[in-house]
Amino acid sequence: MNLKYDECIKACLECLKACNTCFDACLQEDDVKMMAECIRLDRACADICAFAIQAMTSNNPFVKEICQLCAEICYRCAEECAKHDHEHCQKCAEACRKCAEVCREMSL
Amino acid sequence: MNLKYDECIKACLECLKACNTCFDACLQEDDVKMMAECIRLDRACADICAFAIQAMTSNNPFVKEICQLCAEICYRCAEECAKHDHEHCQKCAEACRKCAEVCREMSL
Amino acid sequence: MNLKYDECIKACLECLKACNTCFDACLQEDDVKMMAECIRLDRACADICAFAIQAMTSNNPFVKEICQLCAEICYRCAEECAKHDHEHCQKCAEACRKCAEVCREMSL
Amino acid sequence: MNLKYDECIKACLECLKACNTCFDACLQEDDVKMMAECIRLDRACADICAFAIQAMTSNNPFVKEICQLCAEICYRCAEECAKHDHEHCQKCAEACRKCAEVCREMSL
Repeated sequence: MNLKYDECIKACLECLKACNTCFDACLQEDDVKMMAECIRLDRACADICAFAIQAMTSNNPFVKEICQLCAEICYRCAEECAKHDHEHCQKCAEACRKCAEVCREMSL
Repeated sequence: MNLKYDECIKACLECLKACNTCFDACLQEDDVKMMAECIRLDRACADICAFAIQAMTSNNPFVKEICQLCAEICYRCAEECAKHDHEHCQKCAEACRKCAEVCREMSL
Repeated sequence: MNLKYDECIKACLECLKACNTCFDACLQEDDVKMMAECIRLDRACADICAFAIQAMTSNNPFVKEICQLCAEICYRCAEECAKHDHEHCQKCAEACRKCAEVCREMSL
Repeated sequence: MNLKYDECIKACLECLKACNTCFDACLQEDDVKMMAECIRLDRACADICAFAIQAMTSNNPFVKEICQLCAEICYRCAEECAKHDHEHCQKCAEACRKCAEVCREMSL
């Protein structure tokens, strides 16, 4: 595996963890309805992060395009999570933003 | 690809479709909170169905074990969906039961 | 699930099947070395097809972008498979081209 | 996310990295044919590790069963990789054994 991917793999894992933690926590909130878009984006974001991790570690020929898509989904998920005051949402927004930035650089 | 897998691949795709449709529809219901466990299991079930499809079509050496796990998750998702009167839940319960049966046979 | 996705989901499933069948068959060929790039792209292509199926059935907000990426990977996999005379490669090239076209339309 | 999963998530990521690195390196070896079973198992093992990471971080109700299956596949991949002298195979065997042990404990 290319060593330059290390930081990005780490950011994707942290983002995946934060998104899935937020997905699980949103489903346990009192007002789940308010969290519907957050739940939807948490899943989409965790899934593309897992996909990007697989691509980066396997020398997938489309790793740049996959990281670019990952960055886009992370930015959108960060935007949604940032709207909610729950700690899991705020943490998720931060992890998504960080991951989006690192993935963006990887895609250039 | 082994032809005997055809029915099982088809059942897994139908189940994945029904689970993801139910996941999406539950997130748009008025009472999302009541659907939280359904949303969680829909995701888990769609994911294992996608995993089983990949395993069956790629001659994965652990295809029997994967189909067995898929059957277990499908049974559990069917059980949860069957509790709710929404049409998407009832359809999902039926697709999950069908898929569970076919996967069980595949795992023997 | 949006009904307009039906043709695309079917094309992605056929492509995933053909790619994984080709992946498995390439690994059983006498000259595996000649098939190395084909094996690599078969995996990458099957994986993005599975990802696109999940996205289309779950109303993922990034379904267009995912289908666009799927189309790119399918085109590249078709190009590689078309170089080889094995029946599994020729069938895979055809399924990939078909899937690429349908995914491209979906992404517009 | 449950903190007790941390060690297991880390082991799964290390195993996924080692399997995908080995998959990529095997495809670049002179004698790819000798590595065919290794390539096949590397993919299967990386895939179940990614699946287990998703399950552990999202509070999937079947996390124990998924970790048990992950352990089985890791043991088998370790066994195959251990047969080959390439550094990437030996490293992979070690990462798989470690992951298998941690996943086994998680599944009890």
